[in-house]
Amino acid sequence: MTFARKFTAEALGTMLLLAAVVGSGIMGDRLSGGNVAIALLANAIATGAALVAIILAFGGISGAHLNPAVTLAMAMERALPWTEVPGYICAQALGAFAGVAAAHMMFALPVFSLSAHARSGGAQMFSEFVATFGLLSVIWGCSRMRPESVPFAVGAYITGAYWFTASTSFANPAVTLARSVTNTFSGIRPADAPAFIAAQLTGALAATIVWSWLLGRRSSHAQ
Amino acid sequence: MTFARKFTAEALGTMLLLAAVVGSGIMGDRLSGGNVAIALLANAIATGAALVAIILAFGGISGAHLNPAVTLAMAMERALPWTEVPGYICAQALGAFAGVAAAHMMFALPVFSLSAHARSGGAQMFSEFVATFGLLSVIWGCSRMRPESVPFAVGAYITGAYWFTASTSFANPAVTLARSVTNTFSGIRPADAPAFIAAQLTGALAATIVWSWLLGRRSSHAQ
Amino acid sequence: MTFARKFTAEALGTMLLLAAVVGSGIMGDRLSGGNVAIALLANAIATGAALVAIILAFGGISGAHLNPAVTLAMAMERALPWTEVPGYICAQALGAFAGVAAAHMMFALPVFSLSAHARSGGAQMFSEFVATFGLLSVIWGCSRMRPESVPFAVGAYITGAYWFTASTSFANPAVTLARSVTNTFSGIRPADAPAFIAAQLTGALAATIVWSWLLGRRSSHAQ
Amino acid sequence: MTFARKFTAEALGTMLLLAAVVGSGIMGDRLSGGNVAIALLANAIATGAALVAIILAFGGISGAHLNPAVTLAMAMERALPWTEVPGYICAQALGAFAGVAAAHMMFALPVFSLSAHARSGGAQMFSEFVATFGLLSVIWGCSRMRPESVPFAVGAYITGAYWFTASTSFANPAVTLARSVTNTFSGIRPADAPAFIAAQLTGALAATIVWSWLLGRRSSHAQ
Repeated sequence: MTFARKFTAEALGTMLLLAAVVGSGIMGDRLSGGNVAIALLANAIATGAALVAIILAFGGISGAHLNPAVTLAMAMERALPWTEVPGYICAQALGAFAGVAAAHMMFALPVFSLSAHARSGGAQMFSEFVATFGLLSVIWGCSRMRPESVPFAVGAYITGAYWFTASTSFANPAVTLARSVTNTFSGIRPADAPAFIAAQLTGALAATIVWSWLLGRRSSHAQ
Repeated sequence: MTFARKFTAEALGTMLLLAAVVGSGIMGDRLSGGNVAIALLANAIATGAALVAIILAFGGISGAHLNPAVTLAMAMERALPWTEVPGYICAQALGAFAGVAAAHMMFALPVFSLSAHARSGGAQMFSEFVATFGLLSVIWGCSRMRPESVPFAVGAYITGAYWFTASTSFANPAVTLARSVTNTFSGIRPADAPAFIAAQLTGALAATIVWSWLLGRRSSHAQ
Repeated sequence: MTFARKFTAEALGTMLLLAAVVGSGIMGDRLSGGNVAIALLANAIATGAALVAIILAFGGISGAHLNPAVTLAMAMERALPWTEVPGYICAQALGAFAGVAAAHMMFALPVFSLSAHARSGGAQMFSEFVATFGLLSVIWGCSRMRPESVPFAVGAYITGAYWFTASTSFANPAVTLARSVTNTFSGIRPADAPAFIAAQLTGALAATIVWSWLLGRRSSHAQ
Repeated sequence: MTFARKFTAEALGTMLLLAAVVGSGIMGDRLSGGNVAIALLANAIATGAALVAIILAFGGISGAHLNPAVTLAMAMERALPWTEVPGYICAQALGAFAGVAAAHMMFALPVFSLSAHARSGGAQMFSEFVATFGLLSVIWGCSRMRPESVPFAVGAYITGAYWFTASTSFANPAVTLARSVTNTFSGIRPADAPAFIAAQLTGALAATIVWSWLLGRRSSHAQ
């Protein structure tokens, strides 16, 4: 695989992911008549199902990280060369913003709009730490012994985590940034994004250290 | 496989697909007491689940395209001889109309009825472009490295795309035509069908070109 | 496998299936506050999910038919000796009634109660014909080329068919008989059961004939 | 695998499981506006989906029992040395309480709170017997012939069993104990926990005896 192909796959995959997250949030909000549980159920099922399909489709090209926290964790464990990290993260960020724009255009909204949805405080931070710790645990746990089940495991995990974390489990820095420019159901106030991202990276780091030991690897980051 | 068998498989599979789409729409509409989100959730889950089963069942006979956009894309990439394309599309169209009739008969409605459900405008067109671009991306992405996962990927994708596109993701010209003759939840006004189909074919073409490059094929359509 | 083991597996598997169908219907009815769509959505998801688990668990012992229409179709195609058919059907019927009793006991209801739920008329009959035609199509379609996917295909199919048929897809004579003795959400008036069963057997027969040709078999029933 | 790794995997896996059960119950309760069916649907889907992911991730390290009833049954059938049983159960209990605490912290609640949710009586006991009998049947049925499908079978089974048992299918002594210290949607009054656990162990024992015969093993517990 040339790097241009990997870059394109990460960008397209993350674009489709954000279109799914933001688009299904808008649709759920519009149709549910104010019942937030029904809107979130549709949002969670649509996102999890789309993730299964997207990871199955793009996994063979780029690994379908779709997430800077995953890319950094892979590099830490030498599953991705550090030289490819900036390109991966750039592709994910570009794709994420393009996905928000695509969702807005599908629902006849302005291309971007700053979110006013406040998501802050220690419980939200801890939620993002748990959400990302769990996501990376699922990825590391499957990656060695049953890599072919990663798409199903990640899709199922995110469907569950939308409901069991108080923050609805962003668990992805690129997703977090891009969701700050949608003033719809799934948005996050730009001022709240940095703390979310810090919690996510901490959760990913913690999971990677724990799993490095669980899987009996000589950890590259502990040298 | 003789062509008669493939033709029959495409017709039967598309018939069951339309029975699922239209039938579950009617049931959802009747039972949900006016809550459109619950009706669409049932419609999306029923359609996605039925798709998994139908593609698993008919895939071994005809490939289970069930969709002229997929058949044309396959022919473009030389995965299906052009000589079989007219028969495939004919079978899909026949099956689609038969499926609508079957759904209507199951719910004691007239065999056909012109839809009055308006679905027009640029946002709807763009939704169908995205929906079909995504569908073909999922198919091309899985087809080379993990073809056995296509049924699950397509079923999951459509469940998600019902929610994340503003048009509820028809993504299929035969389905679009047949849904113009059901004046129920899932219908589309006949006058709106041609633009939907144009957007779908454009999305399928775009995805096929992108994936031809992503998969490193010498593209047959670029000669 | 001795026949005693197969008999026990069919009885236990059908018992769990009926406990799932009837129990989740009672729970859905009790909790949904009169919104039938939500009750049916829970009923459909619970039944489909339970079916996946039950067929995965009992498939290796008896094939997990759990359904006299499937057993008869298998015997027609010589996938089961005719001498085992009476035992299979007997086990399925016993298990089905035991499952209804178990569901009632779990919800503190009388062991059996005759259903007053009318389900009659041509549209209902046609629904059962389509439901069982589809079920057997899924089983025959998967059985030759991808038998390991039967549990997922059948579970997904039934989740969909609950919604896309007007009869909520009984598609099983043992299930139909046993559901006549539960006066709860999923019941059927005893007087309506025979026509349901006739439609189911006709649908199973039609599918078996079509698939015998589709799969290119020398059909045993056409000699 | 060293025992320290297995212990850690059981503890972390059970922690995530309880975070999913309790967290999604709190979220469902908060958002559903009093419609218990929608709250339970979200709770069931989130739990089942999380289970699939957790068992896929931790299965390769410790077997992902996450449940003392499963651990005891495995030891009975000599699939786990008895010497490892106390450690497994200890890890599961620790993880379960940690998971409840994590869920409470994510939703800004006190770390622990005694549940006031009464769940008692013969119908509830029988529900737990059936729930655990079914769970162990699924595990034993898959474990010999298709062990790779255990994660999907267990996740699907629990999603169904939340709905088809009157007790919402705890089916796990560690889960039961830990749910006694959450005064939220998924809690159980501490006084009711012992009877639940007794019913669960009886159901697990019954299933293990039946399946020992079904699978044709020389049963270790019948000597």
